[in-house]
Amino acid sequence: MVDTTISNLGECKYKSPLGLNVKPAKEEDFGFVSESEKVRFSHEVDIDRPAVSELLFEKAGPRENIFFDPAKTRAAIVTCGGLCPGLNNVIRSVFLCLHHAYGVQEVFGIRYGYQGLNPAVGEAPIRLDADMVDRIHQAGGTILGSSRGNQPIPVMVDFLVKNNINMLFAVGGDGTQRGAQQITEEVKRRGLSIAVVGIPKTIDNDIMYVKRSFGYTTAADMAHEVLTCAHTEAKSYPNGIGLVKLMGRDSGFIAAGATIASQDVNFTIIPEIPLILEGEKGFLETLKRRILNRKHAVIAVAEGAGQDLLAGAGGKDASGNVLHGDIGIFLREKIVAYFKEQKIPVNMKYIDPSYIIRSVHANSEDSFLCDQYARNAVHAAMAGKTGLIIGLWNGFINLPIPLATGKRQYMNPDGFQWNCVISSTGQPIRWG
Amino acid sequence: MVDTTISNLGECKYKSPLGLNVKPAKEEDFGFVSESEKVRFSHEVDIDRPAVSELLFEKAGPRENIFFDPAKTRAAIVTCGGLCPGLNNVIRSVFLCLHHAYGVQEVFGIRYGYQGLNPAVGEAPIRLDADMVDRIHQAGGTILGSSRGNQPIPVMVDFLVKNNINMLFAVGGDGTQRGAQQITEEVKRRGLSIAVVGIPKTIDNDIMYVKRSFGYTTAADMAHEVLTCAHTEAKSYPNGIGLVKLMGRDSGFIAAGATIASQDVNFTIIPEIPLILEGEKGFLETLKRRILNRKHAVIAVAEGAGQDLLAGAGGKDASGNVLHGDIGIFLREKIVAYFKEQKIPVNMKYIDPSYIIRSVHANSEDSFLCDQYARNAVHAAMAGKTGLIIGLWNGFINLPIPLATGKRQYMNPDGFQWNCVISSTGQPIRWG
Amino acid sequence: MVDTTISNLGECKYKSPLGLNVKPAKEEDFGFVSESEKVRFSHEVDIDRPAVSELLFEKAGPRENIFFDPAKTRAAIVTCGGLCPGLNNVIRSVFLCLHHAYGVQEVFGIRYGYQGLNPAVGEAPIRLDADMVDRIHQAGGTILGSSRGNQPIPVMVDFLVKNNINMLFAVGGDGTQRGAQQITEEVKRRGLSIAVVGIPKTIDNDIMYVKRSFGYTTAADMAHEVLTCAHTEAKSYPNGIGLVKLMGRDSGFIAAGATIASQDVNFTIIPEIPLILEGEKGFLETLKRRILNRKHAVIAVAEGAGQDLLAGAGGKDASGNVLHGDIGIFLREKIVAYFKEQKIPVNMKYIDPSYIIRSVHANSEDSFLCDQYARNAVHAAMAGKTGLIIGLWNGFINLPIPLATGKRQYMNPDGFQWNCVISSTGQPIRWG
Amino acid sequence: MVDTTISNLGECKYKSPLGLNVKPAKEEDFGFVSESEKVRFSHEVDIDRPAVSELLFEKAGPRENIFFDPAKTRAAIVTCGGLCPGLNNVIRSVFLCLHHAYGVQEVFGIRYGYQGLNPAVGEAPIRLDADMVDRIHQAGGTILGSSRGNQPIPVMVDFLVKNNINMLFAVGGDGTQRGAQQITEEVKRRGLSIAVVGIPKTIDNDIMYVKRSFGYTTAADMAHEVLTCAHTEAKSYPNGIGLVKLMGRDSGFIAAGATIASQDVNFTIIPEIPLILEGEKGFLETLKRRILNRKHAVIAVAEGAGQDLLAGAGGKDASGNVLHGDIGIFLREKIVAYFKEQKIPVNMKYIDPSYIIRSVHANSEDSFLCDQYARNAVHAAMAGKTGLIIGLWNGFINLPIPLATGKRQYMNPDGFQWNCVISSTGQPIRWG
Repeated sequence: MVDTTISNLGECKYKSPLGLNVKPAKEEDFGFVSESEKVRFSHEVDIDRPAVSELLFEKAGPRENIFFDPAKTRAAIVTCGGLCPGLNNVIRSVFLCLHHAYGVQEVFGIRYGYQGLNPAVGEAPIRLDADMVDRIHQAGGTILGSSRGNQPIPVMVDFLVKNNINMLFAVGGDGTQRGAQQITEEVKRRGLSIAVVGIPKTIDNDIMYVKRSFGYTTAADMAHEVLTCAHTEAKSYPNGIGLVKLMGRDSGFIAAGATIASQDVNFTIIPEIPLILEGEKGFLETLKRRILNRKHAVIAVAEGAGQDLLAGAGGKDASGNVLHGDIGIFLREKIVAYFKEQKIPVNMKYIDPSYIIRSVHANSEDSFLCDQYARNAVHAAMAGKTGLIIGLWNGFINLPIPLATGKRQYMNPDGFQWNCVISSTGQPIRWG
Repeated sequence: MVDTTISNLGECKYKSPLGLNVKPAKEEDFGFVSESEKVRFSHEVDIDRPAVSELLFEKAGPRENIFFDPAKTRAAIVTCGGLCPGLNNVIRSVFLCLHHAYGVQEVFGIRYGYQGLNPAVGEAPIRLDADMVDRIHQAGGTILGSSRGNQPIPVMVDFLVKNNINMLFAVGGDGTQRGAQQITEEVKRRGLSIAVVGIPKTIDNDIMYVKRSFGYTTAADMAHEVLTCAHTEAKSYPNGIGLVKLMGRDSGFIAAGATIASQDVNFTIIPEIPLILEGEKGFLETLKRRILNRKHAVIAVAEGAGQDLLAGAGGKDASGNVLHGDIGIFLREKIVAYFKEQKIPVNMKYIDPSYIIRSVHANSEDSFLCDQYARNAVHAAMAGKTGLIIGLWNGFINLPIPLATGKRQYMNPDGFQWNCVISSTGQPIRWG
Repeated sequence: MVDTTISNLGECKYKSPLGLNVKPAKEEDFGFVSESEKVRFSHEVDIDRPAVSELLFEKAGPRENIFFDPAKTRAAIVTCGGLCPGLNNVIRSVFLCLHHAYGVQEVFGIRYGYQGLNPAVGEAPIRLDADMVDRIHQAGGTILGSSRGNQPIPVMVDFLVKNNINMLFAVGGDGTQRGAQQITEEVKRRGLSIAVVGIPKTIDNDIMYVKRSFGYTTAADMAHEVLTCAHTEAKSYPNGIGLVKLMGRDSGFIAAGATIASQDVNFTIIPEIPLILEGEKGFLETLKRRILNRKHAVIAVAEGAGQDLLAGAGGKDASGNVLHGDIGIFLREKIVAYFKEQKIPVNMKYIDPSYIIRSVHANSEDSFLCDQYARNAVHAAMAGKTGLIIGLWNGFINLPIPLATGKRQYMNPDGFQWNCVISSTGQPIRWG
Repeated sequence: MVDTTISNLGECKYKSPLGLNVKPAKEEDFGFVSESEKVRFSHEVDIDRPAVSELLFEKAGPRENIFFDPAKTRAAIVTCGGLCPGLNNVIRSVFLCLHHAYGVQEVFGIRYGYQGLNPAVGEAPIRLDADMVDRIHQAGGTILGSSRGNQPIPVMVDFLVKNNINMLFAVGGDGTQRGAQQITEEVKRRGLSIAVVGIPKTIDNDIMYVKRSFGYTTAADMAHEVLTCAHTEAKSYPNGIGLVKLMGRDSGFIAAGATIASQDVNFTIIPEIPLILEGEKGFLETLKRRILNRKHAVIAVAEGAGQDLLAGAGGKDASGNVLHGDIGIFLREKIVAYFKEQKIPVNMKYIDPSYIIRSVHANSEDSFLCDQYARNAVHAAMAGKTGLIIGLWNGFINLPIPLATGKRQYMNPDGFQWNCVISSTGQPIRWG
């Protein structure tokens, strides 16, 4: 059975300064959330099947009583890993919610990811103020800087203690949140009162119980634009092939979302579906038929697809991610070689837009999401909750970090979204 | 008690050609939807409160057995009312789902809204084909044309009968769907087998049980850009005031969404919250304090706000919407007069961007939504369901039209989204 | 005869720190400009016609010897009038050229236009530094603020004297430059050594001997986007008419440029060509024929067009510009009334995008222009030149202010660019 | 001495249908151009130096008398080589000018570059009409398709003869225009009356006497956006290095233009300036000093830079261009290896955006240029001029093809534009 219980640092002795209603007049009113309020795993029900006990998550939001005294709170925020549209929005909203809503005076920005929590390798934190964050949401990147990988856990906790930091907001992906969990455990071991709250950052949209991570929509928008370029190139040359490598280390959500938005893609290749090149129902022959019939093709491939076909770089990066071979380059060469062998001249145009997609500023949808993730993280931390990330599953939820990092969110080849992709591209559901 | 039952034209005697699983192996797989599958009104639960009987909606999606024989089906699609980003995407996906997924050969586009169903005033329909719809999703507007208002119901039903149309997809707002309901009833009265399925179109996001209508996100993105211009103007002049009139006849969702995305707005004025100009806690004095303190201000006003303050144009437009007085012009003049009286020189910059916002093409998020609304509408119609629109409430649902048109969706001044607006602007929750 | 001689404050006793070649090895090399180098008025010649004495302008650029000692120079920059894309680029490049190239330590930004030169009404100037201007070119507007109108000349000169300002860069249009000329004359009268250099700012592109003013291309780009929206609206409704009011107080360059870029406009109405509404060859009947034939029309009207048809607001604004009646509103009402009278129902969509167009940041072309105008202005001022603006006529030139403000640049109805408009719209060259 | 004389097919016996004035009333009026009208090479003059005989070009534009009878004219247009923003605008304007202005009924589009002139390898041409070209300027690419390389000259001339083509418009770069010149010569050898007119297409802006080729400004705009992404990436990581490879086989104009627009680049590396990596004044040590001082750097490198450092792929592509080694990849590896050796950890982000830049649609400035190049090409061809391209040098000119293809246009390291780059980046003028 999945345990969705959130750890608390202790009794909430302070009254929240937010001044909301305890029991809102109407259900849809915004008010303090009681600990008995839960969010259901499933929003569906089959009235012909007997009810089963269902998974319930803790509802995120402001609590009437809080653990920390705002006047004595010192908060820190750290951004880790690869860039993602919306990081500056999150930094800004965490600061504004702490500062304006709760009256916390001291909020620090940790420089360059977890490096900034290790004095041996990192820079000193900067103290944030309202002027500094005023316009940052209009730019991509992170004003705090980022880096990959964790630092020694005891060193980071020492840093928090030495700097009297009461709460740490860790914005990052899988590896970052595993680090946050280890910090939480070390904090507990030492009997400290430091809240650790994660804000999930995954441009790939692949963290469990995070249905829509911030930055994803913006990335799909940008990827859509690149696919339009690939389509233009492909159509402009005889037997033109536009091949675009998109993000997606383990999950093909960006490739799928951009495909559905673009409607110009003929083949979407994702990690969840084994890539089979050879054979009549393999990718290469299918592509050949398309080229012979229509004289052009657009292919979107997620970076993590087809890794079994590659010699494999082996090893892991500083974040602990498996280092992938380059499926884009591999596929480009395979396709070119195949058509050469088939004596069909093709015009191959390969695009690898990764840094262009992830470094832009957030669109409206993502701006809204960032604001929500940030505020809910602050509410959780002020209430003394720790070892959690903010999830989004039929509503914002407080989610134990291990549930989020235990496994990834994958696209279901038999599910609804992949069906939409297939409907748009006309490709087979599976290869071979 | 709310009745969520959907009407059916009759027994589903045909096997769906979609070839999906009847009972998917895993719950999250995509498969035929059984009539016992429901979507819950609420995704939340309070474990300390006794369970109450809850509102359940019919789940949208493809059915195993269908009412219409695809080979004999003639479908028509009509787009009505004001432009909204994504109309062409909807037209395209309705056609593609009918054509490719179900094998329907004859799909017609009705010209210029309901006018095209009245031979006395309208043009003949056009027959859609794959080439015609190929690239239309890349342009704003509607290739079919649109118009406001209904035509005589019997005339429109006569037209459908005369042209052997079996199913009508009506893309439009409140008035359009009320028309669709009347057509449904007339069809029933005559004992005909014509399915009428509505696809909700509301850039204002104000249709009940339609949590996110297509076009809304794109509109908020565009509105965000305009607000940035207003902010630039306001900051560049002494006591600069940037006033932007945004869409929102009855509901302030666009104004609210753009405010949250922009974070540059100081006052958001929406129909749901009475506008009080005078008095110490009125809008004008609050604005004055802002100007004296900060020397510039940005105001976003929804078109339907403050109507009680206007003489009122009275009457209704062809869609049956109450004709609003122009709150933008009114507010501009009130503000200028007030500051003149106060002997404070201000620089007023007024922007009314309506047509610029609604005529652009859909962004990625909206492209995805359009595709879903369209496909679910086709699935419903093929199954012989009628008198419904596709809703989106914790998932896509089949919704009886009267439930959707009975009342509008409003922003709750005590709810969560308005709280976000207040947090961003710093304005009071209510005036006066 | 036109006098193109530029006034000088006196002998250039200092050696320029720019370290360029005096007489460049090759003609196309960049080097110090000698006073004998001129730019021709005409780049054309008819070999069958006898040569006539031709108009020559002083070539802009860095001089080997300069009048001001950089170590003792205090410069000020002021931005006046309406916003224009590129103002921040100009501010930035003036600062960087003074600071990095010449080593000037003190550069001040005057707040809110000429108001900032009058202590009775304005704010104190701000001292610019490298950090402050670092990213400003990425935003529209002006970080210094702007205002309309001049202040009393003696007061402004007093301010310069009191603050030991040696050189003033005035970025603005016709009225601003006339003010700059009066300051120059007052400075001369008092025997002071203050250089006054104008940088022409005219989104309308209507200053004489300024073939391409900064901001114009960006504005045409934005106007093009708005025209696309108008076209979408017009095409989407029966007898749809999209009417867009564009900038152009006296000259139709933006309307013409956007028309040529868009290729969607059917009627371009500019101040240079009298608007005749009535009669068979008048605008209204021509529009009617278009609507009857093609069922939609797009109209771009420059704000200064057809003023003789308006009652006329009379009076002038603070910049001395004649206050125009609103031709957009006028035309909208005339068209609606005309078609009502003709019993032809039309769908009129009116767009007035002015503030959206002028407040965006500069595109690449304009960024380059801004940089050039700014650097050449600094070179002129350091050499002690005064009472000039930087022109662009077959190359950058130093132009006596009275030549620039003596008359405006108009579009020639018999010239080349208007011919391009006519070729695109298909409208008659003249009305009536 | 440079010969600027343009070849003619013969006597111009037909009256132009354009109905312009022969000798315009005012010099600036648009009218028929007489053969005695010339455009000067230099728009500058030094009044202290004796006048030298100067280079004069033939002025482009419509002629009063034309060689071809519009009623009997069959024209063809071909687009060759790499994509460039504006190709569809050129196709459209050539068609519209031929069709509407001259009344030519038959205009053909050759498919996929010169391949379409060789029946053995190419597809049949398509006949263009007004509907087909109506909206094409809103999309990137070329609706005709393109390919690299020439086809056998006699075969292409045979094709023109067989299809009764009287005039060929060849849109392409250096290699394409050399092919056009060979076609011209073969046509002359056979005594045929076929006009061959080139329209210069070079996103690199490197064709002689073509000061601003269409597509360049759009490409610089897009490159500017990519540089902003590189800057965001570089700033977000400790010792972040953003390296962007831009177009520019032989000339660094795009890299330079984008650098000036962006103002975020620290090192611009172009083919015209030898790249020296090693040594105190070499690139690597200079970069190291920057990284140690500022902790991030942005580098823009033109694809043709530093070729002497590469092993060199050798050989030529189908267009006859020397195949370059990949300087982007080379530099990335060199930099990474250097800093590893120096034991300075850096974060390298490499972006190669080529296809994203060249496949977008033209901005307003380029739309205008496309229209002008196209119309002037049509005017030249109708007048029976042949073996020319349209140049732009102080105005549009008719330029003998050999003058344009004889040598390339390079950026002058001692010239003005490079000085602007240096001023922006702060890098040394030359390496080593």
